Amino acid sequence: MGVPMALNLLKAGHTVRGFDVRPGAVDALVAAGGQAASSAADAAKDADLLWLMVVSGEQAEAVLFEHNAAAALPKGATVGMGCTQAPAQAVSNAKRLAAMGLHALDAPVSGGIKGASAAALTIMCSGDAAVMQRARPALDAMGSRFFDCGREPGMGSTAKMINQLLCGVHIAAAAEALHLAERAGVSTATMHQIISGSAGNSWMWGDRGPRMMQDDPAVTSAVDIFVKDMGIVLGEARSLKAGLPLSSAAMQMFLAASGLGHGAADDSQVIRAYRALNGAGAAAPPKPTTGAQGGKP
Amino acid sequence: MGVPMALNLLKAGHTVRGFDVRPGAVDALVAAGGQAASSAADAAKDADLLWLMVVSGEQAEAVLFEHNAAAALPKGATVGMGCTQAPAQAVSNAKRLAAMGLHALDAPVSGGIKGASAAALTIMCSGDAAVMQRARPALDAMGSRFFDCGREPGMGSTAKMINQLLCGVHIAAAAEALHLAERAGVSTATMHQIISGSAGNSWMWGDRGPRMMQDDPAVTSAVDIFVKDMGIVLGEARSLKAGLPLSSAAMQMFLAASGLGHGAADDSQVIRAYRALNGAGAAAPPKPTTGAQGGKP
Repeated sequence: MGVPMALNLLKAGHTVRGFDVRPGAVDALVAAGGQAASSAADAAKDADLLWLMVVSGEQAEAVLFEHNAAAALPKGATVGMGCTQAPAQAVSNAKRLAAMGLHALDAPVSGGIKGASAAALTIMCSGDAAVMQRARPALDAMGSRFFDCGREPGMGSTAKMINQLLCGVHIAAAAEALHLAERAGVSTATMHQIISGSAGNSWMWGDRGPRMMQDDPAVTSAVDIFVKDMGIVLGEARSLKAGLPLSSAAMQMFLAASGLGHGAADDSQVIRAYRALNGAGAAAPPKPTTGAQGGKP
Repeated sequence: MGVPMALNLLKAGHTVRGFDVRPGAVDALVAAGGQAASSAADAAKDADLLWLMVVSGEQAEAVLFEHNAAAALPKGATVGMGCTQAPAQAVSNAKRLAAMGLHALDAPVSGGIKGASAAALTIMCSGDAAVMQRARPALDAMGSRFFDCGREPGMGSTAKMINQLLCGVHIAAAAEALHLAERAGVSTATMHQIISGSAGNSWMWGDRGPRMMQDDPAVTSAVDIFVKDMGIVLGEARSLKAGLPLSSAAMQMFLAASGLGHGAADDSQVIRAYRALNGAGAAAPPKPTTGAQGGKP
């Protein structure tokens, strides 16, 4: 997602110096008139805003404090953390930045590569109001739905986490429903059509449902991403002392799918965990004959 | 839902004789040119199609075989079962009707009073193809989305049950997410706005979410309706020998809400079970001081 976001910043008139650990990832940026940095610290030098688009809060921490991007920033600069991370991690990163005289925005995004390319991301941002205000032109160049989630770092990540809770539960629920259709012998294609226009519909049903009916669909987001994201939800709920029965059940299904060897498969393939659990296809177990039944006559 | 459906049948040119246990319910039908029957059996006399719009399969069974509506029908007539019932109950009712020389359509609907009034119901129908064909003009007068779910009675109810599985899980998931927002201290109103345009969205989030943020919302569908519907899902899954972790977790929350005395409340109030479970509001438990922490130093 980083490349299209950098291109959108450039289009909006910002000066952009980009770095990516994957060689060649910044070529598109350079071709569009941006600059290639040789390291994260090199990208941070003289920047007003350092935008981190990494996979996890741990990676954000490593880039900032091990690869010294934070130390390379001028005093008073802002770090925008666009990654999905645990609220506690966002708070910890922000505190360490503050101790170095730097500002932090906890600003995870939603919308995937599609949203990043169209400059249509949802940005859930928390942090100091004046810092947020200064960063708005850059944020608005990357997203179309901006939400101020509060003054404390961690609030933006909490909002993102709650969205991920629903995403994860809805994907597992869609798999549970389609699996039950398979087992009960009703057409999954008809089921998908019925529910797409009914009260049982969800964004995930529309997006992941069709891929659940494919044997080996293209990977748009992997099972293991939801092992991570539901892990953040349940870890945070644990520290809040809040039991979350549905999230917990959904997590078990993603974990099981990963344990079965499908961690890198498309997350729609959590349905394979259901098939492993209950048996695949329409093959309901044969009804026991009277003679075979246990218990009282 | 029965009254607006009867009115739509009338509008489409059918002769309609209606009965309802609630006195006065058929007044609107008579005012619009329909006929009032004095009992279910009286409504069935000489009818080509007897449409049952009752709460459960048990009620359908009682109307047909205890109140003798089936016996009053002419041979070769069709009974349309529009109620939400267990697939096994639909099969049993259809078998008893067949033994009396009557046809059955297992044809539950979705769309509520709104859909019923607008003749825009989803109808999930299974049964004999020729019988279905003959009933189509009447069915199309009541609904706008017709799905042929197969030749066996029970398949229509299975489709409806799978829709209810998703409805129930999505309501409980919405409550779980909003409850976590409350506990984590993020604005539930902002959360609702964010997710309504994000991948975590569902039909139920849009419909029930706002009522979860009200203390005592109007009842559009009661908690106990989902105790019944999720009970059908889990009963059928039990006989198919299929474990359904999310449906099972959702059922516990509806049961708990009912056990807390909220069975007649709007089903959005399943959120009260979460508040009872974990404590209400943004009051996260105080962080233990070092002195109060157990375990190793």
